[in-house]
Amino acid sequence: MNSTSPVDMFALTIGGITRDVPLVRLASNRRLPLVEFLGDTQLCAAAALELQKLLPENAQVLFTCETSSIPLVHDLAQISKLPYEVARKRRRPYMNDPLIQEVASMTLGVGETLWLDKNRSENLKGKQVVIVLDVVASGGTIQALERLILRSGGKVCARVAAFSQGKPKLELKVAQELPIFDGVG
Amino acid sequence: MNSTSPVDMFALTIGGITRDVPLVRLASNRRLPLVEFLGDTQLCAAAALELQKLLPENAQVLFTCETSSIPLVHDLAQISKLPYEVARKRRRPYMNDPLIQEVASMTLGVGETLWLDKNRSENLKGKQVVIVLDVVASGGTIQALERLILRSGGKVCARVAAFSQGKPKLELKVAQELPIFDGVG
Repeated sequence: MNSTSPVDMFALTIGGITRDVPLVRLASNRRLPLVEFLGDTQLCAAAALELQKLLPENAQVLFTCETSSIPLVHDLAQISKLPYEVARKRRRPYMNDPLIQEVASMTLGVGETLWLDKNRSENLKGKQVVIVLDVVASGGTIQALERLILRSGGKVCARVAAFSQGKPKLELKVAQELPIFDGVG
Repeated sequence: MNSTSPVDMFALTIGGITRDVPLVRLASNRRLPLVEFLGDTQLCAAAALELQKLLPENAQVLFTCETSSIPLVHDLAQISKLPYEVARKRRRPYMNDPLIQEVASMTLGVGETLWLDKNRSENLKGKQVVIVLDVVASGGTIQALERLILRSGGKVCARVAAFSQGKPKLELKVAQELPIFDGVG
């Protein structure tokens, strides 16, 4: 780290594509390279190809939550020919009898709520569901998605992520592990 | 309309793909077919091909806001080889000196706020920017996105939408116009 630089940068690589990204501070006072698939179709396509290799053969549905993982799961759905569902972070006006799930995310430092509309949760029922995320740090989001799958009557088939910070405690297939940076700039 | 049916349905068609979707009630007491590109890669790809035909030749960047338009702009960016940016509806912890723009959305019935991080707004500066949305009803979101483009130093090159309800007052290229349904079920 160059302590005279205003922002410390990190060379993020996945599927042979590299981006120089800033390190951003988490609520936990650790720092994490800023992964941005939104607006980066090349990085997203490369990561989706890597995630495809991690999908179990019996996978039937992909599942994520908004927002930053959406382009990734969308690309992965296209190349794997699997359907996908997205839990929302706000109640939408058209939702009817949605499942509501609290999530404690260390990345954001505040609790969040996930909403899954009834007709969406029915698409998970009885299915082998794969949780797909762009970055996993504390694992809180995965646990909330897992609860939504179980409450929908689905089965958690696998958990896959493009990046993880360190080695998460839960069982997770990761395309690229990121180093842990302490909070000192 | 069949008034004995619990939910009135509408056959939504774009790019040769049709989906039977429910009519959902807006705050304005009008009803709108529920357009869902999230989780529907086939409908999204078909709509992106239709939107590509509406892009001006001098377009340099695509611009939208989260969440429901993200898969659409992502697909359109892939096939048109244009970059895209996404205004967020919540401040993200890593944002630095973001542009903040109020939007009054009749679809939601409540005011919303759009956030565009400084380094993202710089990607619009001096560029011909195309606003891309899944559905346009009142036009409030378009006006807010337009303000963000101008405040970023960009130029509004065109406004395109997969669907509009009725004929919006502002200049807008639409792949598919939807009928207006009154609030009576």
